Amino acid sequence: LSETTTAWTELTAHLTELETLGGVSALLAWDQQTNMPPAAGASRGKQLALISRMQHERLTDPRVGAWLDTLEASKTELSPLQAAGVRNLRMRYDRSVKLSSDLVERFARAESDGFTAWVQAKQNNDFAAFAPNLQLLLDLTLEKTQAIDSSRHPYDVLLDDFDPGMTVAQLKPLFARLRDGLVQLLDAIAAAEQLAPVDELFPVAGQRALHAEVMAALGYDLQSGRLDPAEHPFTIGIAPGDVRITTHYYEDDLLSGLGGTIHEAGHGMYEQGLPVSFVGTGVRDAASLGLHESQSRFWENTIGRSQAFCNWLEAKVQHHFPDTGVTSADLYRGSNRVEPGLIRVAADEVTYNLHIIVRFELELGLLEGTIAVADLPDAWNARYQEYLGVRPPTDAKGVLQDVHWSGGAFGYFPSYTLGNLYAASLGNSMIKAIPDLWARVERGDFAPVLAWLREHVHSKAHLQDAPLIVADAVGERDAVEDLLTYLWGRHGALYGLTRPV
Amino acid sequence: LSETTTAWTELTAHLTELETLGGVSALLAWDQQTNMPPAAGASRGKQLALISRMQHERLTDPRVGAWLDTLEASKTELSPLQAAGVRNLRMRYDRSVKLSSDLVERFARAESDGFTAWVQAKQNNDFAAFAPNLQLLLDLTLEKTQAIDSSRHPYDVLLDDFDPGMTVAQLKPLFARLRDGLVQLLDAIAAAEQLAPVDELFPVAGQRALHAEVMAALGYDLQSGRLDPAEHPFTIGIAPGDVRITTHYYEDDLLSGLGGTIHEAGHGMYEQGLPVSFVGTGVRDAASLGLHESQSRFWENTIGRSQAFCNWLEAKVQHHFPDTGVTSADLYRGSNRVEPGLIRVAADEVTYNLHIIVRFELELGLLEGTIAVADLPDAWNARYQEYLGVRPPTDAKGVLQDVHWSGGAFGYFPSYTLGNLYAASLGNSMIKAIPDLWARVERGDFAPVLAWLREHVHSKAHLQDAPLIVADAVGERDAVEDLLTYLWGRHGALYGLTRPV
Repeated sequence: LSETTTAWTELTAHLTELETLGGVSALLAWDQQTNMPPAAGASRGKQLALISRMQHERLTDPRVGAWLDTLEASKTELSPLQAAGVRNLRMRYDRSVKLSSDLVERFARAESDGFTAWVQAKQNNDFAAFAPNLQLLLDLTLEKTQAIDSSRHPYDVLLDDFDPGMTVAQLKPLFARLRDGLVQLLDAIAAAEQLAPVDELFPVAGQRALHAEVMAALGYDLQSGRLDPAEHPFTIGIAPGDVRITTHYYEDDLLSGLGGTIHEAGHGMYEQGLPVSFVGTGVRDAASLGLHESQSRFWENTIGRSQAFCNWLEAKVQHHFPDTGVTSADLYRGSNRVEPGLIRVAADEVTYNLHIIVRFELELGLLEGTIAVADLPDAWNARYQEYLGVRPPTDAKGVLQDVHWSGGAFGYFPSYTLGNLYAASLGNSMIKAIPDLWARVERGDFAPVLAWLREHVHSKAHLQDAPLIVADAVGERDAVEDLLTYLWGRHGALYGLTRPV
Repeated sequence: LSETTTAWTELTAHLTELETLGGVSALLAWDQQTNMPPAAGASRGKQLALISRMQHERLTDPRVGAWLDTLEASKTELSPLQAAGVRNLRMRYDRSVKLSSDLVERFARAESDGFTAWVQAKQNNDFAAFAPNLQLLLDLTLEKTQAIDSSRHPYDVLLDDFDPGMTVAQLKPLFARLRDGLVQLLDAIAAAEQLAPVDELFPVAGQRALHAEVMAALGYDLQSGRLDPAEHPFTIGIAPGDVRITTHYYEDDLLSGLGGTIHEAGHGMYEQGLPVSFVGTGVRDAASLGLHESQSRFWENTIGRSQAFCNWLEAKVQHHFPDTGVTSADLYRGSNRVEPGLIRVAADEVTYNLHIIVRFELELGLLEGTIAVADLPDAWNARYQEYLGVRPPTDAKGVLQDVHWSGGAFGYFPSYTLGNLYAASLGNSMIKAIPDLWARVERGDFAPVLAWLREHVHSKAHLQDAPLIVADAVGERDAVEDLLTYLWGRHGALYGLTRPV
């Protein structure tokens, strides 16, 4: 056996074990949010910490570095799969070994303290009480990006954790154009007549049955998955054959809960579509958080809020809730109602990206030193006023609303909007490839949608970074234009608007 | 710090981590039987195998042996807790290091093949097809007991895994006397008029609500536990604050399902009562499987099939099943109906131990070489005829009914009957200590029962072996006589019998 072959064989065995350990950790996390008895919190914390330490030990094992050195030294012998695995793993390995355990511990403590302080500060509407924690997290974040690669923009180093291949230089103009386009659309909608919401009560038992039918119809495989209620819905890939989704039922908001289930089913179908044969190779992951989000958003919005989908859904809603008189027109209007608000997670499709862009601009300012922590609430409120036309009455409903910064997760927010941009371009190409797409959706036949995504996204796993996977699928597209065209197409029609030329 | 103190500190830190890993493994097992999607079987097998290997590596770490050596060399300095922890861990450690990994692997393969062959053989009613697997498992079991301690009776070596402190020399006369006494009682019952079963349908939704009320009333803590349905009910202690039980609902058999929940709640309350302060000391375990079973059986039978309990239960049953006319007298008769049968897990309180004694006598014969594998079916059938008065029409309903031997679990069965014997003596003493016990049970006040068990059993964890814990609680008692007195007292009265002097 050549040295290359031996290194690859040993590396994949090692990675397979690391992935197995990741699955164990994922089950602990899933159970914590679905089934764990209240008194088990401290015990669970110890279990998660132990498995996490073991994962870190295995990832930073010096043999990993040696195997990578060997494989990189014989690049020409590697298959495309091997080359991708080596590239992905090199990034993970280098990031892990470059961070001293001292810095990792200080960061972990700052995260934990930051979370506690944030909960308190949000409750008391007292940003100043959280400010020192945020400053410490920022300082440690910069220390971390320095340690990993002091030659690059710190935000670019952070992006590698979430959307590798994406940079500030790309994001800034992309998000600026999107922001201007969205503000223009939102202004037009604000001047039009508002759509009616669906304003009835839907018993939870009926919602459970409806969600089960919908997710099965979409193609989420229940032989290798399950749906459970959770306080904050999420999707988790535990192992091949085990990808679980969660949702939340609201008696007074049928569409929000159903949208959540479709969203998570979109994530779940992506995870279920990652090829089993890639286990241990370093490529059996989502290519990026943004691409993951493109899958959930595409199903939730492009499909799940379409007229065709609402037409299909009508009979099911009427079957499970015979006492309500909800029609497909009600569902379509209720699903696509636009209303600028203060809260990101409750935002509609048009305003959602503005919430993200506010956060992106602010965290970039924090990291570049052009915005001071103390000035953050004012900067937040000014941007909400400017982009969304609303001003938070309190910091609790403003700058303190999201948990992310309290855990030092800077650079994460752009993934949400990247997901919407990817979804818009993917949708554009899919509709061209499947001429009878909407007729199929209208009769509940989602198989061609899933097949297209399987072929162009899921089966690619992390063989390439997300921008390249999307480019392979759609060609050279202007994603901002794709997203704006899609939003004007749907919301323009509903609100009786024509896009200015 | 003295060498002893240092060794103890390091040992407890090591053991704490080992227990944490045990909890991870327990969650994987719990999930496998309650929630896991069907397609996840292979992935789960890998996760369990990995954690199991890590547990074995940690248990057999040479440092453990060195810490034990140090602590054993300064026995006089040890507290009773430390001495017990060292004794327990020495047994576990020695058993693990004495088994070569080659033998462990051959055993694991024989178990796996044995299980597959047993499933097939049972399905085809073909004992001969399973016989070679059973022979191999027996041979490997003897090889294992030789490796652990060739100076002792192999069955005693096996008993250490389940009921340490118990020996063949003790069990043989105990079980022989119990067998004769049970056969006498059973003969008397067979000649009396049979009691009526509860023969109605009970919708599962009502059973769920009833079980929830009952387990909470008994004292099973839902802050640190939960009840889920499972194919084969079990209890699992995952960690301090996390002890879960499972049950099975039968629409046509209210009492069987409820008895199962009470049984598992009994196991669960024992696990919930193990002191948290014992974590990492080597004593935070049940003292034995038999003592564990004494807790489940005591709640299920002594309490759960009593007249007082049925009186309390009547209103609850009538509330949840208003269409049935079930009275407390029906419940009491139905709970205590005796009928010799072929199947151990379906047996009543009187015949259950005869099923166990058949198995004990046969596996002793197999290990001592007085019964050949080929002769096992005949030996089984002859004993069923002699002790229970019934003869299996097929081996599938006879010698092939239990899974235990297919996994090489010889020496396990006696724990069930030891549990009933311990429960009888514990019950005798508890009733003396709580004079108004039955009046309390009748009004649903189970607190004194749980408090007595907490004090005399649960809080002792594995500070001593089970026979000593029971002796401390009840004094010198004749457990066989306690059990026969209890059974004659209840079933004699119901069947109108007087015990011969």
